[in-house]
Amino acid sequence: MSTATNPMPTARPLRLSTSDAGFEAAFAARLHWSAETDAAIEQRVADILADVRLRGDAAVLDYTRRFDALDAAEMAALELSPDELRAAFESLPEVQRSALRAAADRVRRYHEAQRRAAGESWSYRDEDGTLLGQKVTPLDRVGIYVPGGKAAYPSSVLMNAIPAHVAGVGEIIMVVPTPRGEKNPLVLAAAYVAGVTRGFTIGGAQAVAALAYGTATVPKVDKITGPGNAYVASAKKRVFGVVGIDMIAGPSEILVLADGSTPPEWVAMDLFSQAEHDELAQSILLCPDAAYIDAVQAAIDRLLPLMPRAAIIAKSLNDRGALIQTRSMEEACAISNRIAPEHLEVSSREPHRWEPLLRHAGAIFLGAYTSESLGDYCAGPNHVLPTSGTARFSSPLGVYDFQKRSSLIEVSEAGAQALGTLAAELAYGEGLQAHARAAELRLREVPPMRKPR
Amino acid sequence: MSTATNPMPTARPLRLSTSDAGFEAAFAARLHWSAETDAAIEQRVADILADVRLRGDAAVLDYTRRFDALDAAEMAALELSPDELRAAFESLPEVQRSALRAAADRVRRYHEAQRRAAGESWSYRDEDGTLLGQKVTPLDRVGIYVPGGKAAYPSSVLMNAIPAHVAGVGEIIMVVPTPRGEKNPLVLAAAYVAGVTRGFTIGGAQAVAALAYGTATVPKVDKITGPGNAYVASAKKRVFGVVGIDMIAGPSEILVLADGSTPPEWVAMDLFSQAEHDELAQSILLCPDAAYIDAVQAAIDRLLPLMPRAAIIAKSLNDRGALIQTRSMEEACAISNRIAPEHLEVSSREPHRWEPLLRHAGAIFLGAYTSESLGDYCAGPNHVLPTSGTARFSSPLGVYDFQKRSSLIEVSEAGAQALGTLAAELAYGEGLQAHARAAELRLREVPPMRKPR
Repeated sequence: MSTATNPMPTARPLRLSTSDAGFEAAFAARLHWSAETDAAIEQRVADILADVRLRGDAAVLDYTRRFDALDAAEMAALELSPDELRAAFESLPEVQRSALRAAADRVRRYHEAQRRAAGESWSYRDEDGTLLGQKVTPLDRVGIYVPGGKAAYPSSVLMNAIPAHVAGVGEIIMVVPTPRGEKNPLVLAAAYVAGVTRGFTIGGAQAVAALAYGTATVPKVDKITGPGNAYVASAKKRVFGVVGIDMIAGPSEILVLADGSTPPEWVAMDLFSQAEHDELAQSILLCPDAAYIDAVQAAIDRLLPLMPRAAIIAKSLNDRGALIQTRSMEEACAISNRIAPEHLEVSSREPHRWEPLLRHAGAIFLGAYTSESLGDYCAGPNHVLPTSGTARFSSPLGVYDFQKRSSLIEVSEAGAQALGTLAAELAYGEGLQAHARAAELRLREVPPMRKPR
Repeated sequence: MSTATNPMPTARPLRLSTSDAGFEAAFAARLHWSAETDAAIEQRVADILADVRLRGDAAVLDYTRRFDALDAAEMAALELSPDELRAAFESLPEVQRSALRAAADRVRRYHEAQRRAAGESWSYRDEDGTLLGQKVTPLDRVGIYVPGGKAAYPSSVLMNAIPAHVAGVGEIIMVVPTPRGEKNPLVLAAAYVAGVTRGFTIGGAQAVAALAYGTATVPKVDKITGPGNAYVASAKKRVFGVVGIDMIAGPSEILVLADGSTPPEWVAMDLFSQAEHDELAQSILLCPDAAYIDAVQAAIDRLLPLMPRAAIIAKSLNDRGALIQTRSMEEACAISNRIAPEHLEVSSREPHRWEPLLRHAGAIFLGAYTSESLGDYCAGPNHVLPTSGTARFSSPLGVYDFQKRSSLIEVSEAGAQALGTLAAELAYGEGLQAHARAAELRLREVPPMRKPR
């Protein structure tokens, strides 16, 4: 019976060629995805934020009861104690414990290199002794949002908490909804491994509000990172300015640039690994070789029936996937730049030939052995990446998201003479006489004040 | 008559002492400033954005006619040509031209050092040959918003455009409203000096919309930076995600930590230089020495009548200013960290003694000679700084705002063996079998696929 009502799905991603007359229109239609929040969600979220701001814990408890079917008399009952996190870790089979630890170690090592390369204070002195630079300091306290339910990923806990930890953040507060009180032991274990300071089993806009404004129990944080559903995304956008936020996540995407040298099954499975996340996920192959594209389609047909999540994969590939024949690898690179994909595999014998042509991508996976899934879990780089073309202007989550910079300026007495005259000239030009005068008062010979322009 | 209706204002910033019983409440009340946008502005902005998205140039022309009293038949009439920018520069007196050039050179030098310190690509290889790193690339095209009217500051053009230029941004599009068509030659000249690619005399939410969505004439950009009024701030927040944005600017603030060693007139003028911006600007002095605070108040009384903008200064100081006596410099540093000021002057004989205690500030000005106004114009660091306590989680505008990062991962064949087993273990744990399988297919001995958990 179940096979009759649920026949094995087939996956036929849209087949296109850049030489087709209708290519541009078909390609644009396939890429289209709107990040617009609907007005009803926006209003609902505004109301929840205002309510949590006003009523604090009581409001969070009410929404958790209503949306997560989790009834608690007080917020303390929703706190995850350090003992509970450790116990969750210790309850895991040894193979999972060591996998979590090994992945965390690699992610930590990568982010430590990132901090050394781009996150240290620096300064220099002018010849007159004036010092200029920037001091880099960690945020005091951050909140990380971990989605619950079917998309509760322990790897996301590592990817959010470890860069914060490496940055030197004092307190890392995790929120994770646990509908009906069902906790994911891997998520709790990952929080233990990653060094989360405190955790609360709350989610949705109410958790974002609690972190942004603080309640009697949940401490106010300086920044909130981590992906969530439309309510979480809308809430993060709305509290931006009260706290910092990372990017707003859209559906996940992979783009594979293939020159035909990788086994087609590998590429097919890489496309699946994106598609299995979500029916809205997007998997695209760009390749100049039509026969190779046929071979990948054949591998899709062969492998799909083996996949437990075949239905999701098929829907994602059928609705949003594409296999695109290009005129050349160069053209494939140019199209990739238009898409600015979250994940970009350069499945080629010559990945370093193409990499310099690739301007916009969250992460670039070079060579046939670099499956995106290795990057998702344990290669080291962060798997929280800009989606929906936002790689044109934003970056992977990193240590820099958990640091901020303060300019350092120490003008010497000699420096104040040269700079003072210059600053005063410009300040008078802008009609800001107090600015001009503050500079002139530091001159050895203070000139008379000029008339307003 | 005019002196009768406009008597010389007096400025009496709120005098507080941390030893007073009512200090906490009075201090909190004085700091209070709400960044909340009112609902009417939000709705108006949403309508303008939707209209510009739909009607493009025609909508921008309509709003420019309505809000800026500037009537143009087509967008081309609102474009600033490169010739016009150069002519504006050449029309300036020599002293202004060389001041602009000298300031631009110093700002450029500082941001070049910033790029070298924190904005270069990096990578390393594991022992098994696996390459990990990040590639840093400039944004393709950015928009800079320059306020018009009374707050049209050429220095802001330099501070936004030069870091973009140093980052290597391909095109820098400036928008600046020119109510009734009145152009500020210094703003145009600064655009010439800073290397702006194209300019348009448009402003408000309609200019933000034109940059975010693109019109037939105004090219779509990847990121919009620069301060503006409440409409501009609301519009930037709303287009965040479609494009990148920098921080949302609130009123400007200065905090002076003084140990009593700086001439009181200098400190008074530094407080004025913030207050003269805007009645909402905030100037605060923290000092353990009551007699010194008295001396600063006396200097305020003496100097205020000399200032052309005395009325604005007085209102700002009376409504939002404070002179606070602390128990010690250490306590002053602790209070400064609670405020997280935009501008922080350490007006002390021992600035390097206190600097390590200062965790949150946009820019730190060390020593008596370092007036904030030197930093505003020409010391080199950026004057676009986080306001309203957002220095807790955000940074000065910098080269990094005009760059983005792509992770680089190249797993060697040997690396794929070690990482593949690890990634598969974690992926099976998350129920993502295609992820697991993509990793396992790269193993020399491919294991059988596991059953779903």
